[in-house]
Amino acid sequence: MQENKFESALNVNKGIEQPPTVNPYISNFYKEKRVSTLSEDDYLDGILKGNTTILSQAITLIESSKAEHRVLAQKLIAKALPHVVKSRRVGITGVPGAGKSTFIEAFGSMITSMGHKLAVLAIDPSSEKSKGSILGDKTRMETLCNDPNAFIRPTPSSGSLGGVARKTRESIILCEAAGFDVIFIETVGVGQSETAVHSMSDLFLLLMLAGAGDELQGMKRGIMEMSDIIAITKADGSNKDKATLARALYSNALHLFPKSESGWVPVALTTSAVTREGLEDVLDRINEYFTLTESNGSYTKKRREQSRYWMYESINEELLGRFFENPSVTEKREIYEEMVLNGEISSFAAASELVRIFEDSKQKQ
Amino acid sequence: MQENKFESALNVNKGIEQPPTVNPYISNFYKEKRVSTLSEDDYLDGILKGNTTILSQAITLIESSKAEHRVLAQKLIAKALPHVVKSRRVGITGVPGAGKSTFIEAFGSMITSMGHKLAVLAIDPSSEKSKGSILGDKTRMETLCNDPNAFIRPTPSSGSLGGVARKTRESIILCEAAGFDVIFIETVGVGQSETAVHSMSDLFLLLMLAGAGDELQGMKRGIMEMSDIIAITKADGSNKDKATLARALYSNALHLFPKSESGWVPVALTTSAVTREGLEDVLDRINEYFTLTESNGSYTKKRREQSRYWMYESINEELLGRFFENPSVTEKREIYEEMVLNGEISSFAAASELVRIFEDSKQKQ
Repeated sequence: MQENKFESALNVNKGIEQPPTVNPYISNFYKEKRVSTLSEDDYLDGILKGNTTILSQAITLIESSKAEHRVLAQKLIAKALPHVVKSRRVGITGVPGAGKSTFIEAFGSMITSMGHKLAVLAIDPSSEKSKGSILGDKTRMETLCNDPNAFIRPTPSSGSLGGVARKTRESIILCEAAGFDVIFIETVGVGQSETAVHSMSDLFLLLMLAGAGDELQGMKRGIMEMSDIIAITKADGSNKDKATLARALYSNALHLFPKSESGWVPVALTTSAVTREGLEDVLDRINEYFTLTESNGSYTKKRREQSRYWMYESINEELLGRFFENPSVTEKREIYEEMVLNGEISSFAAASELVRIFEDSKQKQ
Repeated sequence: MQENKFESALNVNKGIEQPPTVNPYISNFYKEKRVSTLSEDDYLDGILKGNTTILSQAITLIESSKAEHRVLAQKLIAKALPHVVKSRRVGITGVPGAGKSTFIEAFGSMITSMGHKLAVLAIDPSSEKSKGSILGDKTRMETLCNDPNAFIRPTPSSGSLGGVARKTRESIILCEAAGFDVIFIETVGVGQSETAVHSMSDLFLLLMLAGAGDELQGMKRGIMEMSDIIAITKADGSNKDKATLARALYSNALHLFPKSESGWVPVALTTSAVTREGLEDVLDRINEYFTLTESNGSYTKKRREQSRYWMYESINEELLGRFFENPSVTEKREIYEEMVLNGEISSFAAASELVRIFEDSKQKQ
């Protein structure tokens, strides 16, 4: 079924006033999304048929913070879980200017042309600091947007990192139930979300520029060390020699890092979305990675560890949420924080006191 | 008062059978420590007089997990807080083999000879994985152990990272109340504690070896990027040229990283504990760092942020502790974890269920 992602994005948002031209990639700019009134079985049915309009609506349901939507979403995910296809989840990040969208457009099209179904999800909690880069970095992905075998879903427009991570992980399940066997999870690379993306990907791909200097500003510390493949982008024209040199530098640096548990030795490559040189190389290395990790068991092991990790992360977030939303805590928190900042009480005594206030308030309920 | 740290370590442990020769630096090997029966005012009085035997006993009190000791320790810390001297807290880590103890011995002696009082604390939660390195890395610090202006306290022998971090931070307060104006907080560099040490230090010093390769194995990712000063150790004899080259390589790499908020540009140096070359250079740079950060306000800002950070970290840990110690949670946790691992339930649904079980069990109490 040929489908226009632009149209489906508009469908989801229908009823909300929109300016005449809308880049579907930034449709999350409209924070109010209407949640459809389908039943969980209607959603599931549509998803299993590969209907991306319904998939998109189901993700909107996941993103909703309303209690009744959360309940429905959990039921839907429980029913979708047995239907997920075996997939390859690739985390992609890059410094601003590395041409992440252009790379995903070119590389993603190559993947769908080989018969794969590709879902591109983004995880980037909005913040004043990173908003500029996110919007600025989003160039069009026209080919992929109009590709019937691709599904592109922009980042949820707001929420804590934990909340956004949960939504993205749940969206992955729905995409896999809809038959998408390759999942790209992308992030801007200058925020706090790289660890989260790394924790939900099988393979982590870092896009770098030759001669990055100022571009590294704000980049998450340690990100190079968590990458399985580093691709130096824009290796074309007058930039090609510089990119080749950068590849050598990164290769040397990668040898200084400890080997990953999977036995994979990280590699540095050069690519060009313009000449398409190096794209096949990236694909070959990704395939090598999966061949290795699927055969030595580390693919399954990593998936299991990630599931466990997210269970505990989520418990942590729920407990903290209950604590910080407690009115007695809200009333006293800043007072104690101020005392801590002024050195009048130790950080640990303040914490104990606040936890005691929290427990007492619940006794009274 | 001339005092032998070896003796005072033995005092703390008296009544417990010990082998004939004991390296005071690994006296934490004996897990059972007797807690003195002093009152909080006795402890405070001794600490304010700079009595390191009593300081040592007070830290043993902090390390105790008994409820009555915790209460007494909190009272003591509250009373000690107004008496802390202005201090410089230096986090020190290094790859195994970098000669951390030898460096601390030589550099620490230099600092005390200048009239400073130096406390050396360690933060390394014991684990099967790191235990070998911790014990293996501890060479003697005889000079410093016998230095009346130095106080050396080994790492608590067991406990979670969060617990050990709390104990170390509380120990810092007592040391500062006892007049120690320079605090070294050291960690092995191959564990999970580097971030914790970084979060309680004004300045972070990384000791590296020239030509480190295998030594980097197990080293915390991103650690180089959080360092303010990198010192290449063992820059003497036939190793000197290699160290000078390494210094250049690290200097180049440091320029790739984003500048720190304080405005400090990280530097790489070479040192030798044997020839003592470069030690003054390290001291000069540390002084420069403090001159800069104290004058531009970032010293105070960082201290405040760290206090706030530890308050929230501690709340987190207390909440998680209550959750995981809950009998209903204990009963069900593994069942849910298994379902998550088998893909029968989403990580987030399992988390919600466990939190619900937790809340229900408390309603019944």
